[in-house]
Amino acid sequence: MIQTSIITIGDELLIGQVIDTNSAWMAQQLNKSGIRVVRRIAVGDVWDEIWNALDQESKQADIILITGGLGPTADDITKPLLCKYFSGKMVVHDGALQNVINIFTNILKRPIIERNLKQAEVPDNCKVLLNKSGTAPGMWFEKGGKIFVSMPGVPNEMKGMMQDDVIPLLNNYFQFPHIAHRTLLTAGVGESFIAEMIEDFEKALPKHIKLAYLPNYGMVRLRLSSSGSEILSTEDEIQHYFISLQELVKEFLVTNKDEPMQQVVANLLVAKNQTISTAESCTGGYIAHLLTQKAGASAYYSGSIVSYSYKAKESLLEVSQSVLEINGAVSEEVVIQMAKGALKALNTDYTIAVSGIMGPDGGMKDKPVGTVWIAVGNFEQIVTQKFTFNFDRTRNVELTATFALNMLRKFILSLD
Amino acid sequence: MIQTSIITIGDELLIGQVIDTNSAWMAQQLNKSGIRVVRRIAVGDVWDEIWNALDQESKQADIILITGGLGPTADDITKPLLCKYFSGKMVVHDGALQNVINIFTNILKRPIIERNLKQAEVPDNCKVLLNKSGTAPGMWFEKGGKIFVSMPGVPNEMKGMMQDDVIPLLNNYFQFPHIAHRTLLTAGVGESFIAEMIEDFEKALPKHIKLAYLPNYGMVRLRLSSSGSEILSTEDEIQHYFISLQELVKEFLVTNKDEPMQQVVANLLVAKNQTISTAESCTGGYIAHLLTQKAGASAYYSGSIVSYSYKAKESLLEVSQSVLEINGAVSEEVVIQMAKGALKALNTDYTIAVSGIMGPDGGMKDKPVGTVWIAVGNFEQIVTQKFTFNFDRTRNVELTATFALNMLRKFILSLD
Repeated sequence: MIQTSIITIGDELLIGQVIDTNSAWMAQQLNKSGIRVVRRIAVGDVWDEIWNALDQESKQADIILITGGLGPTADDITKPLLCKYFSGKMVVHDGALQNVINIFTNILKRPIIERNLKQAEVPDNCKVLLNKSGTAPGMWFEKGGKIFVSMPGVPNEMKGMMQDDVIPLLNNYFQFPHIAHRTLLTAGVGESFIAEMIEDFEKALPKHIKLAYLPNYGMVRLRLSSSGSEILSTEDEIQHYFISLQELVKEFLVTNKDEPMQQVVANLLVAKNQTISTAESCTGGYIAHLLTQKAGASAYYSGSIVSYSYKAKESLLEVSQSVLEINGAVSEEVVIQMAKGALKALNTDYTIAVSGIMGPDGGMKDKPVGTVWIAVGNFEQIVTQKFTFNFDRTRNVELTATFALNMLRKFILSLD
Repeated sequence: MIQTSIITIGDELLIGQVIDTNSAWMAQQLNKSGIRVVRRIAVGDVWDEIWNALDQESKQADIILITGGLGPTADDITKPLLCKYFSGKMVVHDGALQNVINIFTNILKRPIIERNLKQAEVPDNCKVLLNKSGTAPGMWFEKGGKIFVSMPGVPNEMKGMMQDDVIPLLNNYFQFPHIAHRTLLTAGVGESFIAEMIEDFEKALPKHIKLAYLPNYGMVRLRLSSSGSEILSTEDEIQHYFISLQELVKEFLVTNKDEPMQQVVANLLVAKNQTISTAESCTGGYIAHLLTQKAGASAYYSGSIVSYSYKAKESLLEVSQSVLEINGAVSEEVVIQMAKGALKALNTDYTIAVSGIMGPDGGMKDKPVGTVWIAVGNFEQIVTQKFTFNFDRTRNVELTATFALNMLRKFILSLD
C-alpha cells in the first residue's frame, strides 16, 4: 500500500506560535483520494533536521509532502536545501517569474524588489508547480521511486496547489485503493457508555474495518473506515455495518453525516424554511459565528444580539432591570426574557439565548464558574436548562454553544 | 542540549478529522521552561507505527512526550503497547482507581462500568501522574537515560497534567538553558518589504540569535530568539537587539508583545477606561468572539448587533430602507449608518461596523466576492475604508476582523 508522510517545516511550529492546520487539511484531501497518510512530522528551519526528516520519511513512505520554509526571507531554507538534497542547480523558471511579476503588478500593486524575483528560482531537476496566490512556486522531485513535493506553508497557497496539481499528479502516478469512511455524531452520552452499547457489534467487525471513537465537547463521533480495490463493494460493505451502528446508537444520534452540530441545525431550518436568531451573553458572538461559517446562512439566520453588558440586555432585549437585579444576569428568568426579546427584535421562528459565567473569574458561591442558563424556543414556548461546565474559558464557550444548538435541535424535532 | 520530541497518537490526526492543537500548546509551555522541542510527529492508532516512532524519536531526543490513545475503547492501544515496550506488567493503581471512582460518582454522576475501572490499570514500572479532569492516568517511564511521558489526548486533561506534573518533574530531572524570545507585530506591509527594511540589522545579528518572519492575515510578526545559560545576560542581549528592531519597523508597528490585534485594542480601551461596540454583518459575530475571548472583556466591550438580514439592520441599527435599497448592504452609506446605529443602541465610546461579501457566492459585477466596507468611529467622527480580499470565506472573515480592529486602533491613536 502506498504510504504518505507529511513534513511541515518552521520554527514557529516547534515553539507553538502557530497551530498547524495545514497538515490536517492535507490529510483530509489525500484521504478522500485514497491516499493514506501514515506519519506527519514537524521540524524547525534547521538544515540538519530537515535533511534527516527527508532521509527518514523517504525510508518509510512513498510520497513525501513538504510545506513551509519557501518565503523570501533569510529564515526560509527549504529551497536551497532541496536543491542540494537532489543535487540540482538553481535556475530562474520563466513561468514562476511571470507569476511573481503578475502578483506584484496586478494583485499586490507594490513595487517588485530583488528579493521577490529570487522567488522565481528553482532547482533545475524539479517539475515546477505554479502558485496562483503567491510568489513561491511548488517543486515536484522524483528520486529512487519516491515522490517529494515541496509547497508553501501559507494555507491558501498550499491548498490551491494541492487541489490543482499535487492530487491530480499523484493520481496519475500511482494506483490508490478506495478508502471509505462513515461517520455519525452522538450527543448526551459518554464514550465508554457507547462502547458498552456497541460491544458485540465492534467485536464482530471484520479486521479490515476500523471503528474509531472521537469524543469532543459533550459529543462523541463514531467513524467506520475501510479500504479496498473496488469502490462499489467497499462502499456496500461499510454501508451495511454503518446502518447497524446507527440503529444501535439511535437514541443519541444527532446526524449520520460527518458534519458539525451547527450544520445539523442549519439543515433542519432550511428543510422547514424557517429562521433563527440568537441572544448571546457569555458566548460573545460565538454561536453567531458558528451559524454563519457556511455560505448561505442568511437563508435561516437573521442575526444575534450579543448583549455583553446589563445595559445591552435592557435596551436591545428588553430584559427588565428588576429581573436583572433580583436574579442576576445568569438566571433562568433572564435567559427567558433574552429569548423573548430576541424573537421580538429579530422576528424569527426560533431563538437561542445563553447567559453564563465562563471563567476564569466571576464565579459566585451559588453560581460557580461554568454555570450557564440556556433558553431555546419560539413565540409559543420557551424551554430552559441549566448546565455547569468544568473546563477553561474557551472550552466552556464551545460547550455552551454545542449544548445550546443541540437543545434547539431537539426542540424543533419535538414539534413534529 | 536537551532535545524533546512530541508524539501524538490517533488515526483522526492522519485523516485530518481533527486539528492537532495539543502539540502547539505543549511546545509553547515547554519553550517557556527552556525545553526545546526539535520534532513533532503524529502517527495512527497502529501498533507498529507507534512502536517505530518510540524507537526513532528516542534515538534523537532525550525527552519523548506522548499524547493520545489512552481512552477506554478498543481503538486505544497506547497503554498496552507502552506496557510491552517497557517490559512491564499491568497492575491496578490505587490512586488512579480512587480518581476514576471519584469522577464518576461526584462529577459525571454516572454509574461506573468495568471498562472505566480498567482505566486505573497501569504498567508496574511507570510513575503514575494523576489526571484531575479525566479517568486516564498519565505514565512516566525512564529507559536508557531517556524520559518517556504518556498523557491523554483530551486537551484539558493533558494541559492539567503538563502544568501540575510533567514540567515540574522535567525541571527537577534536567538543567535547561534559558530561552528568550521577543516578538513584535506589524500591519499593512509585506514580509519581503520588511526584510529589505531590516536587511542590515538581520545580517549583523550574532549566530545564536535567530530572526523569524511569521506572516498571517495582512500582518507580519517578527520574532527574535536566543538561548543561553544565564538568564540575565541572555535577556539583556536580546532586548538590545529587539529595541533596534522596533525602531526599524516603527512605522508599521502594532505591538511589541506577542499578543493578537484584539488584545492591543483591548489594552488601549482599558488604559483609557473607554468602551466599544460592534455592528457586524459579514463577520457574523466573529469580531465579538475575538473581543470576548479573554476574561474581563465586559470592562470595555458592551456587545454586538449581528445584523445578518436587511430587517435586522433596519430594526436594530436604524439603517434606512431606502439607503439599503439604493446602495445595497455592502456600501459605505450602510456601514456608516450601522456604526451610528450601534453607537446609539449600545452607547459606547467607539464602534466598528462591517458589511461585505465573504464568498464563495454572492459576488456581483461591481462588488466581487471579498468586497468589504468597514467603518470605525465615535459620536463625533466616522472613518470608512473599502477592502477587497481574495481568499476563501474563513480567511476573508479573519482578514475583515483584523483590518477592522486595526482601523479602530489607528482611529483611537489619532485622537491623542
